Amino acid sequence: MIESNIISTIKEVNTVAILPHVSIDGDALGSSIALAYAVKELGIEPIIYIEEEIPLSYNFLPGTEFVEVYQGEVKKYDLVLALDTGDIERLGKRVEILKSASDTINIDHHATNTEFARLNLVKTTSSATGEIIYQLIKMMGLSLTKEISTCIYVAITTDTGGFRYKNTTSVTHQIVSDLIDNGVDVSWVSQLLFETMSLPKTKLMGLAIETLQILEDGKVAVITVTDNMIKNAGAREEDCDGIVNIGRNIRGIEVAVLIRQNKNESFKINLRSKKYVDVSVIANKLGGGGHKNAAGCTINGYMDDIKAMLLKEIKKVL
Amino acid sequence: MIESNIISTIKEVNTVAILPHVSIDGDALGSSIALAYAVKELGIEPIIYIEEEIPLSYNFLPGTEFVEVYQGEVKKYDLVLALDTGDIERLGKRVEILKSASDTINIDHHATNTEFARLNLVKTTSSATGEIIYQLIKMMGLSLTKEISTCIYVAITTDTGGFRYKNTTSVTHQIVSDLIDNGVDVSWVSQLLFETMSLPKTKLMGLAIETLQILEDGKVAVITVTDNMIKNAGAREEDCDGIVNIGRNIRGIEVAVLIRQNKNESFKINLRSKKYVDVSVIANKLGGGGHKNAAGCTINGYMDDIKAMLLKEIKKVL
Repeated sequence: MIESNIISTIKEVNTVAILPHVSIDGDALGSSIALAYAVKELGIEPIIYIEEEIPLSYNFLPGTEFVEVYQGEVKKYDLVLALDTGDIERLGKRVEILKSASDTINIDHHATNTEFARLNLVKTTSSATGEIIYQLIKMMGLSLTKEISTCIYVAITTDTGGFRYKNTTSVTHQIVSDLIDNGVDVSWVSQLLFETMSLPKTKLMGLAIETLQILEDGKVAVITVTDNMIKNAGAREEDCDGIVNIGRNIRGIEVAVLIRQNKNESFKINLRSKKYVDVSVIANKLGGGGHKNAAGCTINGYMDDIKAMLLKEIKKVL
Repeated sequence: MIESNIISTIKEVNTVAILPHVSIDGDALGSSIALAYAVKELGIEPIIYIEEEIPLSYNFLPGTEFVEVYQGEVKKYDLVLALDTGDIERLGKRVEILKSASDTINIDHHATNTEFARLNLVKTTSSATGEIIYQLIKMMGLSLTKEISTCIYVAITTDTGGFRYKNTTSVTHQIVSDLIDNGVDVSWVSQLLFETMSLPKTKLMGLAIETLQILEDGKVAVITVTDNMIKNAGAREEDCDGIVNIGRNIRGIEVAVLIRQNKNESFKINLRSKKYVDVSVIANKLGGGGHKNAAGCTINGYMDDIKAMLLKEIKKVL
């Protein structure tokens, strides 16, 4: 069984590095810290290398003392574990640490995982990599501390959109039940994760709603965000994340578009659909990509032309 | 055991009416329909009387054929069950049905429940009345159909704010795990409940954010909504619900205020706090009421005076 193989491998080494994917999210970070605590319980001091600083919204997590922003040094580890990472490109510069490791393990839940390590535990039915780490920790017979429980809870609740996405299963809720019994402060964590927004992002949302256009009999929503709007809101580029959902969440909307207007006639397009439209088809045609309900592309040109082109493509599949 | 007593009572009667509370919510409605399905499985055709029409957001629920808007007729039932109803005032006009019943049962999870029926099952550790109905259905040995599971899921997820509030327990997640195994379409239900907003409400949010003022070193947020804004958004009065949370959810904010400016210098004030401030103290002083983290009042006067008065009171407790 691959799980037992992984556990005995971890128990036999002396130095361990853990690598979550670039653009770290709640699952990648929560899983990594939970695993770091577990490895430490086994008597090894692990290190988690990340590509960029921990995002503000996850600063409340315990165990950030395990985490280091990678500075390019190449140290040889007995074992390197890549977590929540579909392929080695998602390791960024840290791929060097993986390459120079004596042994490698890859733990993930993405169906697209390329199985790039010696041992690959890819469970696509798991809602989050956090679920797999939970199961490994239980199998190792280690204690589910409050810290580990909180990290796994964050991993699962962020990757399931607060237990709302399709990937949420009965097993997900069984695990979360156990995590709560082991001390997770549900309302505190949820407030920090889901009910906290920066002032600039809030302002940007207001400005974005002002640009909202409803087209095609209420089935298409278009929102535009310009550099000026970002400047006026005091916002940052990443504050555009999720703005497209304002349009998507409107009753009756099937396709939502966010046009992010950069300087020099370059436009980043976000596409979302609610049910039947496959927006990846549209994105692919325009040189981008994605999934059925979430896709994107970048186009050069003029605003009016781009809007017209997008609407023409959307109309075909609406 | 009160549960067995309730079950044997239900099994002995021929006519059953179920009464959820006025201003029906997801828990009251979901619990009532789930119980109606269960009662029907026992061979009795139950009726659910509600005070007002089913809100649009719950129209997708199965079993609405059990539900009737009460028209004032007084029919004598063998058994009337009040669900999720803290006291008889919460039954509105339908209290007459309770009064004329041969027997009465009260199933609820509110700590303030006045135990107004012959048999009272009040479990304050349950996150929702839906949890209690789930347990009764399991005890009755009835099958958890997809319909029943969906109704109980809606009851629980709405009353826990999507498993985010303090009342969410490990038992809550255990129950939900079982409901999912019995056919709940998690992403479909969640999308309908949590990710659907009307166009007017979305527009009103945008206009509300435009009025946002941040005061007292980023600790106080004030939002104003006027009749004109509601008109321009094409919104309705109830679309103001939750607007105060835009302010509350901003990072660093402790107290959020929504000033709803009506005609004739009448102002409805909503107050929310995040952690330590008890906004009910402020509301009480101004002739209103509420809880520590959510309170309100109505004041007559001029906008500037009212804002100054509110800020003066808030400063005292900040």
